[in-house]
Amino acid sequence: MATETLEVEGHIIDSLILAKLLDLIVASGADYEIVDIDVGKANADLSTARVRVTAVDEDALTALLEELQAHGANRVSAADASFERAETDGVLPAGFYSTTNLPTSIRVDGHWLEVANPEMDCAVTFSAEGARTLPMHRVRAGDQIVVGSDGIRVTALEKPRGTHPFEFMASEVSSEKPKARLLAEVAERIRRARERDAKVLVVAGPALIHTGAGPDLAALVKGGWVHALFTGNGFATHDIESNVLGTSLGVSLTEGAGVEGGHSNHLRVINEIRRFGSIAAAVEAGYVRGGVMYELVSAGLPFVLGGSVRDDGPLPDVHTDVVAAADAMREIVPGVGVALMLASTLHAIATGNLLPAGVETFCVDINQAVVTKLADRGSHQALGIVTDVGLFVQGLREQLCG
Amino acid sequence: MATETLEVEGHIIDSLILAKLLDLIVASGADYEIVDIDVGKANADLSTARVRVTAVDEDALTALLEELQAHGANRVSAADASFERAETDGVLPAGFYSTTNLPTSIRVDGHWLEVANPEMDCAVTFSAEGARTLPMHRVRAGDQIVVGSDGIRVTALEKPRGTHPFEFMASEVSSEKPKARLLAEVAERIRRARERDAKVLVVAGPALIHTGAGPDLAALVKGGWVHALFTGNGFATHDIESNVLGTSLGVSLTEGAGVEGGHSNHLRVINEIRRFGSIAAAVEAGYVRGGVMYELVSAGLPFVLGGSVRDDGPLPDVHTDVVAAADAMREIVPGVGVALMLASTLHAIATGNLLPAGVETFCVDINQAVVTKLADRGSHQALGIVTDVGLFVQGLREQLCG
Amino acid sequence: MATETLEVEGHIIDSLILAKLLDLIVASGADYEIVDIDVGKANADLSTARVRVTAVDEDALTALLEELQAHGANRVSAADASFERAETDGVLPAGFYSTTNLPTSIRVDGHWLEVANPEMDCAVTFSAEGARTLPMHRVRAGDQIVVGSDGIRVTALEKPRGTHPFEFMASEVSSEKPKARLLAEVAERIRRARERDAKVLVVAGPALIHTGAGPDLAALVKGGWVHALFTGNGFATHDIESNVLGTSLGVSLTEGAGVEGGHSNHLRVINEIRRFGSIAAAVEAGYVRGGVMYELVSAGLPFVLGGSVRDDGPLPDVHTDVVAAADAMREIVPGVGVALMLASTLHAIATGNLLPAGVETFCVDINQAVVTKLADRGSHQALGIVTDVGLFVQGLREQLCG
Amino acid sequence: MATETLEVEGHIIDSLILAKLLDLIVASGADYEIVDIDVGKANADLSTARVRVTAVDEDALTALLEELQAHGANRVSAADASFERAETDGVLPAGFYSTTNLPTSIRVDGHWLEVANPEMDCAVTFSAEGARTLPMHRVRAGDQIVVGSDGIRVTALEKPRGTHPFEFMASEVSSEKPKARLLAEVAERIRRARERDAKVLVVAGPALIHTGAGPDLAALVKGGWVHALFTGNGFATHDIESNVLGTSLGVSLTEGAGVEGGHSNHLRVINEIRRFGSIAAAVEAGYVRGGVMYELVSAGLPFVLGGSVRDDGPLPDVHTDVVAAADAMREIVPGVGVALMLASTLHAIATGNLLPAGVETFCVDINQAVVTKLADRGSHQALGIVTDVGLFVQGLREQLCG
Repeated sequence: MATETLEVEGHIIDSLILAKLLDLIVASGADYEIVDIDVGKANADLSTARVRVTAVDEDALTALLEELQAHGANRVSAADASFERAETDGVLPAGFYSTTNLPTSIRVDGHWLEVANPEMDCAVTFSAEGARTLPMHRVRAGDQIVVGSDGIRVTALEKPRGTHPFEFMASEVSSEKPKARLLAEVAERIRRARERDAKVLVVAGPALIHTGAGPDLAALVKGGWVHALFTGNGFATHDIESNVLGTSLGVSLTEGAGVEGGHSNHLRVINEIRRFGSIAAAVEAGYVRGGVMYELVSAGLPFVLGGSVRDDGPLPDVHTDVVAAADAMREIVPGVGVALMLASTLHAIATGNLLPAGVETFCVDINQAVVTKLADRGSHQALGIVTDVGLFVQGLREQLCG
Repeated sequence: MATETLEVEGHIIDSLILAKLLDLIVASGADYEIVDIDVGKANADLSTARVRVTAVDEDALTALLEELQAHGANRVSAADASFERAETDGVLPAGFYSTTNLPTSIRVDGHWLEVANPEMDCAVTFSAEGARTLPMHRVRAGDQIVVGSDGIRVTALEKPRGTHPFEFMASEVSSEKPKARLLAEVAERIRRARERDAKVLVVAGPALIHTGAGPDLAALVKGGWVHALFTGNGFATHDIESNVLGTSLGVSLTEGAGVEGGHSNHLRVINEIRRFGSIAAAVEAGYVRGGVMYELVSAGLPFVLGGSVRDDGPLPDVHTDVVAAADAMREIVPGVGVALMLASTLHAIATGNLLPAGVETFCVDINQAVVTKLADRGSHQALGIVTDVGLFVQGLREQLCG
Repeated sequence: MATETLEVEGHIIDSLILAKLLDLIVASGADYEIVDIDVGKANADLSTARVRVTAVDEDALTALLEELQAHGANRVSAADASFERAETDGVLPAGFYSTTNLPTSIRVDGHWLEVANPEMDCAVTFSAEGARTLPMHRVRAGDQIVVGSDGIRVTALEKPRGTHPFEFMASEVSSEKPKARLLAEVAERIRRARERDAKVLVVAGPALIHTGAGPDLAALVKGGWVHALFTGNGFATHDIESNVLGTSLGVSLTEGAGVEGGHSNHLRVINEIRRFGSIAAAVEAGYVRGGVMYELVSAGLPFVLGGSVRDDGPLPDVHTDVVAAADAMREIVPGVGVALMLASTLHAIATGNLLPAGVETFCVDINQAVVTKLADRGSHQALGIVTDVGLFVQGLREQLCG
Repeated sequence: MATETLEVEGHIIDSLILAKLLDLIVASGADYEIVDIDVGKANADLSTARVRVTAVDEDALTALLEELQAHGANRVSAADASFERAETDGVLPAGFYSTTNLPTSIRVDGHWLEVANPEMDCAVTFSAEGARTLPMHRVRAGDQIVVGSDGIRVTALEKPRGTHPFEFMASEVSSEKPKARLLAEVAERIRRARERDAKVLVVAGPALIHTGAGPDLAALVKGGWVHALFTGNGFATHDIESNVLGTSLGVSLTEGAGVEGGHSNHLRVINEIRRFGSIAAAVEAGYVRGGVMYELVSAGLPFVLGGSVRDDGPLPDVHTDVVAAADAMREIVPGVGVALMLASTLHAIATGNLLPAGVETFCVDINQAVVTKLADRGSHQALGIVTDVGLFVQGLREQLCG
């Protein structure tokens, strides 16, 4: 049998943190004893608890502690963090500490040092420049990597409190919610983000264009409500196609019917942009005169087109190397306050993996399973909205651009 | 081996009718020979074809002919229709002819006589008043019922033609369609229906209220754009609850959050309406002062609340006998030109079974499976729109009520 | 401001009960103070807490207390229950206490009296025969009905504990779960139910027959693993049709293809059963020789066919009055230990409303939205399994019938 | 006005080809005249038709002809194909002919020359080695590329005929189908593919592992029923993780419950494989001793792991460059007779784009929208099966491996 005492602090009862911890302990087959608990009397007060955990062996305990720390339960007996140097480029020491997306500190020489850029599923490296997260592919031989679980502190994120309209929905994803109210609230969050100079990041899938919401998103970019875009070849192509040729996947968006140009339109558009050498060059040359990509280029706003195996062409701006694409996204993440994931699965999950836990994230999709899947992947701070992205983005434009 | 020659007339090629017929013949294991075919040269011209069908035995042929007739292929050798008298109330003669929802005629004494009210899955009865469809439960001993398949002619419904925006969507149900365009088109169909004095029937489920679109539908009723409502206890209750108490399923629609009245609200509302004796009485007494049911009552428009086994209460207006409910719906169907099925499965299928094939039907639901299911059940003239009913009905109001 | 002190006992921390209560209080805009808390040290120990709740006014407090009691938080200052007599048949006194499906007691003359048959959304009546729940339509003038919230005690249901395979799934509905393991576990629950002489209730939709699982369910009935069935006209018709004619909705189940009998098959089958007068008479006469309904009739097991507005025919056994149907279901509920809801929405929700909270309930459907909807409606003890009902029931038969 | 006469040959009526052509003509706003039609009398006979198409201008006509050719309608006045040389690497001449996935020929010096490897959305290049398709990124300056639409002939693919069980399902995707029968039929197609030495390609998503079907797919590989795998980092990682550690996404598959190793398991497994340098090296070293990847490596079978922006690590075998990944897939495609797409969206669409139209393709997913989306993207020959991939693959193993 192996035993360890953990402590956890915060709104551990009403934010369900303590309950979640005990749930994990029992589910793993371990046992617990609540050593002491100090429950904040009122809603605003913090609570603290110390819990002694007993597992069948050291391995099971280590694994369990790792899970518990992902919810903010840290070991009481905090020693300094342990380090090991990487021996090979791109390979971590076997016992590396695997990060959560929560605020994290490591103890070095008895002092707690904050890790600079919280990101899920990374290692922590420590050097003269301080502590920072490091994705596996970026580790270089000789890098000093945190191993084991000593000297690491993770701060649980509180469930947001107060009389806001998302409270009653947080627990479950369902299409049967008052949508006009949700729309107004998302618009409000975007307004507040801009007020505090936080960036609004949009992650979009091609369905946004097919449902006719391209001009709405373009208007939001032009109006200064969107500050960066993560998407793929399909979205950018159909956005440009619909502006250059008035069609998307060969379907005329303004007329509704009428297959004017046919299914090869998108290929011809990609081919032309390849000839120009980049979307920006095509905008410069006057070939692209409107749409989401046009507005981004015109406003000098950053975008990342991540490649995927299904891409036709692709557009010259696409990062065909997916590791490079993710790294390009990492450059843009700092400063993001609100992330809108619009009818995107692949890029939304990719982005969710990169974002710190504190970023307000809204996943909008007509398919409930997609929204559930995003939450399954660890983006617990995300709020799922099951609705039609076409009508939703149109509504956002009406709210924000008047 | 059994053989029969059929003929079919109309836009049998471009409306896919001939293709569908040959498909059914081969799928059933039978064989065919095209005796002659006269293809209309241009798009506007009619075509005719005669097809000789050979099946393994008489039973297989009879079954196949029944299927083929449901798509407008009639036997060349038309004799008079055969009749048999029902022996027992509510039970048809074994060989009864089972109707489609297409325009149908029967031959009596060498003359073709149109069946008054086409409805799917009924029998045809003939009396001094003419020929009409009869649901099974309404047959009375002594009624003269058409049996076999002699002397029956069914007219295939053309797939609507012309440059309208639904054409490219007719083949498949998908959420990736330009929604603003679809919305504008449905609004246009409603406008045209009113112009030609056809009724607009709404079939609604409770999710319409939960998504916050109750006031929008109420405005459409008040504006004269809706002429009848088929729904159930849940919709009516939540509509009244949201107007009397401002909540739906205990969720405040205006505030979004805040569980003010709790889950028993709907029970208390039902109980009060039961005390008044009817919704109309509760409107009269000033207890209900707004909402969809209020506007219907105020305008003297008909509605049918069909009972279901899951009903709480129910409201006094609910037809707890489902056979009586369907009969009440049958009273309202004549004159309906457009049917909008909004987030409803049960009542939408029930209504789809009652409507003649020519009624323009739009099924709006966020769940693609529901829309597919409606088509599976025989409502082939229905156009499925996979979108958020809350935002869709809000959009309809904006289009129609300004 | 209005204030009340509540107490709650049980595994209130690890079963998330306390967290849920505080969540509801804050969400409603009220405030709380934890007066005292006694947390069980170990997993097996009970905990108790007393919480003082303060709301803006008496109405808000009353509504909130009602919500909280539905989760097992009862008022400390327990007076006797208050009663009022119903004035009209079918109408409750305005302030009636609305039940949960949890074990409930009322205090009469200082003694706690258990309510006989817990059912959601009912009233409680008290007479010489004791306390029992009463659906609204069954109240008669003069019945003594509990009003207000004095003298009522509700016992929170513990989240089931221990190393069982459903633990990690309880929180969310997803299709990405190890299905073979889930299947084995549901089979085990059915075995245990039979061992303790608890009944297994199946609630089924017609898709079960369409997916080819009819013979599997029939084998489970024949094997003694199913003790009652709640369903509708469609399921029973397609079950009988597939056995009499070998088709379901006109699709041959054994051959896969081949539209042998056509879409009117189900009507002819209904008509024949109507001629016999009942399913049992048709079994007796040898017209029906296999299938789910045949096995139920042969074994003398009860079934309820609840009517719905979309029914063709219907079969003579269908309760066309939905209130009568629900009452017939209520007769069968006592003694049910396991409820399997198989590809059914309407009847599953109806049944969920009737079942006491302690019944182990499994909702199997391929559509995640349906499973979520069942949970939304209050059947929180239900475990959702998103899978193909056809393959699932086949697997159950293999597990239970060898 | 611009006019052209087309001819089409084959089972143009019962395979719906003519109907589809006329539909496209009218939908595009053009007009047609059927110049002559020769309908095959019996089911086995071929039919031919010549149709004169008139569009508003040359551009509209060109676009329309392109659409029509994708369905097998070729111009009567066949001249030789026209060529233009590419000026820049990776950029096609503006008027390039965009391919379908149907069998295609080009006319050179009056002779028809078959294009070697039909693939959708490519160009056709002609050199001393003959005609072949060329994806855009592979074109090199100087390559001779087919432009315009002269001298190109496309052969419509017949809808498969005969008494096979998929006929009645071809038209629509629905979860309500007899699943045991479908399973048996897919197994039969795999058997026949092996008999004629055609390869069986599996395209899989990670949900296959989460639903517990990994061992079943591994058994199918071991049994010689699978000859190649296209998938991504997630599937391979979870497959290896579940074999090395007995978990998938931190969930124990054998126990069902119990979060033994936690969410970082997959990262540690990726890190170890990176240390070995490849999956094959890890198999060689005895680190991986079972599972799908193990069986593929052991049998020397090819697999392609295509990168995506959401990849952790990734595994050293992943093609991080997506264009290289697609090229690697192209190497394997020739010889594939059956493609099984199992719970995969991204890789399934990518594969669908690469496959010639004649490959029998089955898309298995629990989500109807995914299956519809695959068809939307042009893989019209794909049969969608809406079911639980976990139980489906288990069933396939039972059928094929005994």
